[in-house]
Amino acid sequence: MKVGFVGLGNMGLPMAKSLLGAGHALTVWNRSPARGEPLVKQGARMASSPADAARGADVVFSMLADDVAAEAVSLGAQGIIEGLGKGAVHVSSSTISVALSQRLTDAHASAGQGYVAAPVFGRPEAAEAKQLWVVAAGAQVDVERVKPLLESLGRGLTVLGEHASMANVVKLSGNFLIASMLEALAEAFAFTRKSGVEPRQFLEVFQSVFASSPIFANYARAIAEERYSPAGFALRLGLKDVGLVLEAARAAEVPMPLASLVRDQYLGGVAQGHGDLDWSALGALVAERAGLGRPPR
Amino acid sequence: MKVGFVGLGNMGLPMAKSLLGAGHALTVWNRSPARGEPLVKQGARMASSPADAARGADVVFSMLADDVAAEAVSLGAQGIIEGLGKGAVHVSSSTISVALSQRLTDAHASAGQGYVAAPVFGRPEAAEAKQLWVVAAGAQVDVERVKPLLESLGRGLTVLGEHASMANVVKLSGNFLIASMLEALAEAFAFTRKSGVEPRQFLEVFQSVFASSPIFANYARAIAEERYSPAGFALRLGLKDVGLVLEAARAAEVPMPLASLVRDQYLGGVAQGHGDLDWSALGALVAERAGLGRPPR
Amino acid sequence: MKVGFVGLGNMGLPMAKSLLGAGHALTVWNRSPARGEPLVKQGARMASSPADAARGADVVFSMLADDVAAEAVSLGAQGIIEGLGKGAVHVSSSTISVALSQRLTDAHASAGQGYVAAPVFGRPEAAEAKQLWVVAAGAQVDVERVKPLLESLGRGLTVLGEHASMANVVKLSGNFLIASMLEALAEAFAFTRKSGVEPRQFLEVFQSVFASSPIFANYARAIAEERYSPAGFALRLGLKDVGLVLEAARAAEVPMPLASLVRDQYLGGVAQGHGDLDWSALGALVAERAGLGRPPR
Amino acid sequence: MKVGFVGLGNMGLPMAKSLLGAGHALTVWNRSPARGEPLVKQGARMASSPADAARGADVVFSMLADDVAAEAVSLGAQGIIEGLGKGAVHVSSSTISVALSQRLTDAHASAGQGYVAAPVFGRPEAAEAKQLWVVAAGAQVDVERVKPLLESLGRGLTVLGEHASMANVVKLSGNFLIASMLEALAEAFAFTRKSGVEPRQFLEVFQSVFASSPIFANYARAIAEERYSPAGFALRLGLKDVGLVLEAARAAEVPMPLASLVRDQYLGGVAQGHGDLDWSALGALVAERAGLGRPPR
Repeated sequence: MKVGFVGLGNMGLPMAKSLLGAGHALTVWNRSPARGEPLVKQGARMASSPADAARGADVVFSMLADDVAAEAVSLGAQGIIEGLGKGAVHVSSSTISVALSQRLTDAHASAGQGYVAAPVFGRPEAAEAKQLWVVAAGAQVDVERVKPLLESLGRGLTVLGEHASMANVVKLSGNFLIASMLEALAEAFAFTRKSGVEPRQFLEVFQSVFASSPIFANYARAIAEERYSPAGFALRLGLKDVGLVLEAARAAEVPMPLASLVRDQYLGGVAQGHGDLDWSALGALVAERAGLGRPPR
Repeated sequence: MKVGFVGLGNMGLPMAKSLLGAGHALTVWNRSPARGEPLVKQGARMASSPADAARGADVVFSMLADDVAAEAVSLGAQGIIEGLGKGAVHVSSSTISVALSQRLTDAHASAGQGYVAAPVFGRPEAAEAKQLWVVAAGAQVDVERVKPLLESLGRGLTVLGEHASMANVVKLSGNFLIASMLEALAEAFAFTRKSGVEPRQFLEVFQSVFASSPIFANYARAIAEERYSPAGFALRLGLKDVGLVLEAARAAEVPMPLASLVRDQYLGGVAQGHGDLDWSALGALVAERAGLGRPPR
Repeated sequence: MKVGFVGLGNMGLPMAKSLLGAGHALTVWNRSPARGEPLVKQGARMASSPADAARGADVVFSMLADDVAAEAVSLGAQGIIEGLGKGAVHVSSSTISVALSQRLTDAHASAGQGYVAAPVFGRPEAAEAKQLWVVAAGAQVDVERVKPLLESLGRGLTVLGEHASMANVVKLSGNFLIASMLEALAEAFAFTRKSGVEPRQFLEVFQSVFASSPIFANYARAIAEERYSPAGFALRLGLKDVGLVLEAARAAEVPMPLASLVRDQYLGGVAQGHGDLDWSALGALVAERAGLGRPPR
Repeated sequence: MKVGFVGLGNMGLPMAKSLLGAGHALTVWNRSPARGEPLVKQGARMASSPADAARGADVVFSMLADDVAAEAVSLGAQGIIEGLGKGAVHVSSSTISVALSQRLTDAHASAGQGYVAAPVFGRPEAAEAKQLWVVAAGAQVDVERVKPLLESLGRGLTVLGEHASMANVVKLSGNFLIASMLEALAEAFAFTRKSGVEPRQFLEVFQSVFASSPIFANYARAIAEERYSPAGFALRLGLKDVGLVLEAARAAEVPMPLASLVRDQYLGGVAQGHGDLDWSALGALVAERAGLGRPPR
């Protein structure tokens, strides 16, 4: 296929390499053209603008740092939308806002072009090793067409549906999960450290207990399927244990705002009569507050 | 060894079985004696009280539901402390408060007895399959003596130090980590679901991206070693992405208090000049607030 | 009346003075007896212990710093309960826990004595000027008997009911209100200051707009009477305005966790269909989470 | 003076009436012209567009519901900026975003016109009774010119400086203060109610203790002047009392997230060595996190 690639940063460069390696005719563009030289040596063509990279391509990828850059190369002067032919597809892999993804969907549709959001999970090393996980969404015909390209970028692909922005929702949620876990780890290390536990010891426990087990996956399944009973570990016991954490952290003088937040969630669950559901029923409490309906009894 | 075991609940029963299976002479006690019958059939003796279970034993385990039960069988009338001989050791595997663990340490020391806190990570199935992970703390001589017993319960053991209550701190922190991850998952599923993403699809992404990767382990290492630069992903980018989550969740009408909390943490980090550290530097911000010193530059 | 007074700290001393000034026969006790000398000069008797201060008294007051001190002088060796006669009343004005207040109620009842919780609102200057506001609760007969004494301490008295600990609930809630307002002011000053507004100017606005108006009283009435419609200012407008605060504070790099918290409350209200209620309907949302029933439509 | 007024809603109509009553020649515009009829009967002229209301005026006021409406009547087709003469001033009293206020400042400056942000505190009844409090900011010459008009609207005026958007920061902060107080009241009523206290009794205490006293004003002064010692009430006592609130609310099953938040703030203060400062030193903790410097010792 004739493929364009706009944005050769830490993530974009190895992704473009993967596409070139898969045998596609590649035209690249980057604000600093020097970044593209290794690709040119391997047979890629250097474009003079995003529009130029898109011109004549079946598919053009973009991988930029933020909303401002992604909007500029897509819709700005000499942007992708100007060069892309009718029926050709823009695949946006940048981590951008849901709102911008929707604007891009509309703009490309008005121009008779396709738009697929396909952000990726993984660091540059994973991109280099073709170990990214790709989440893609967009019109079915467009997703089908770019699927082989997406599959050549990583170890797997999840197709989410016809609304492109859903892929951005999922990518942002993934980053939110990591941020949440970081906060939790940050509080746990501060708490254990000030209580006299060596950080490397708590690290050993964490690696042994959490990192190599399917624990998070199983809880995620319970929430996904809204199945909170019979309780494996009752919500009221979750309240008890988090209460014990706060009590001991109070004594050690360690503020743990996330523990406070979770405790208040569990306390609300008990106060509303859900103490006997599984402690994963946080899923139901948060969903109710979001207007998605009442928890099951 | 002569071993007593007090508390034959969902966790205690399979743990006692493991000890019996490892060839130890076992005396058991449970509030409802019927729970102990399978063990008696395999050669265990049924005691008439916790004190009776402890009498003559080298080591007595206890595994109870909460502080009230653990205190009663340990220090109450006909409690473990009354029966246990000088130099013998009480191993408490219950998930109890740090404060109670300290009281038990003192009480047993006054009685010339040893005390080891050894809570376990794992569900009843893991106990049955000897796949628990044990965290133990207490005087070195006592820990050394009970080590073979603890090793026969699971797949691994982390010894934390001479203060028994540290093991409780670590056990509580482990439960806090799970609770935090649950809140994060709960919010993420509510957010993605209301945005139109099928829960089973987000589950697929989570399982593919998070559950089988060393991602949490690596971040935990960064926090444990207080190594926040060079940044793999800068704190100011963490602020950006969580801001994008909140923006889109606002539009979808999904309150995400943990995302708000994490965003305010990152915003404080940026306001104080740490925007170029790695986003795992939440570890430094939380530690500073706990009085553990300022973030590195 | 014959009155005892235990605890002559910054609050206790002026309160004892007021009682002496009202013509009662006063016996005082303080850990450091020197604090009582000015009262002795005015005719008070110095007791040798809390029990001694209580002996023969119709009523004995206690005003201590915290739970530990209050429990010691009440129930400890040579404590109030030992000296107080049957039918006489202990008035506890300390800011103590609800749980301790309940234990004191039970202990005095078992001893055939009365117990009234009567914490006060006001600083030492207010105590000196007899401008305290007293909140009292306890058995009606006991409250009636001590009422003239309570009235001589301040400018007003609210009698709350027969359960003494309710007065502690109200006193603690009052302190919580002040703490909440402080957090709000702290965030508002940081936000306005970093945006370039002089603190003295925002102070002028606050004093002009808030401090001399019945604004808080009116909102408190709406919540007390659960009357959230017709909306004076709709909940969805509350969401809008707090959203604007966060947006501008983000730009100024000021984390405002309480604003985040309130925003998430309002967002949850809108998501659940309550956007047209008055913004004081936070009262309904918080009440529902506490298990007190659903918001009105 | 020749005055235009755009936006005759619940607030705009009585404000326009005040200006007419003060003897100014008034031209009004409203999307639904019927709202302006009472003013026309009293001598006002009805304009055909915002531009028409601004044409020939010395000063034109606008009072709209939100950013969208305010931007449309100001900068849209037939907007104020089209009609207003060079040197004339636009006074915007709407509660709008800080960002829009800055855009309006720039747009009017480019057109050789003046711009003053002058949002008001007070409900429609206060507008009717000329009891509003006005906060104004903008270029000094412009503020001076419109001052008599602003003074005729209410009981007082605070002039904030040369950057118009500061007035919006202050207005938004005022609304944030009310929202915070509402959350605090909501939690306090839920807590006291579920503990058995009659809402009308807690209301009586609140009205007696808080609403008619200078308490908030004094704390605001301490924060404004960064004067946290000597402590009137030490930060560590604030931690104690909020801890007691949470303990009792836990027993009554009432989640109080704001109390948790404030507790964690105080706990962080104590952990960092500020326990002996006044509890109003929340002002210092929040300011430090915002990058405004360390707390005083």
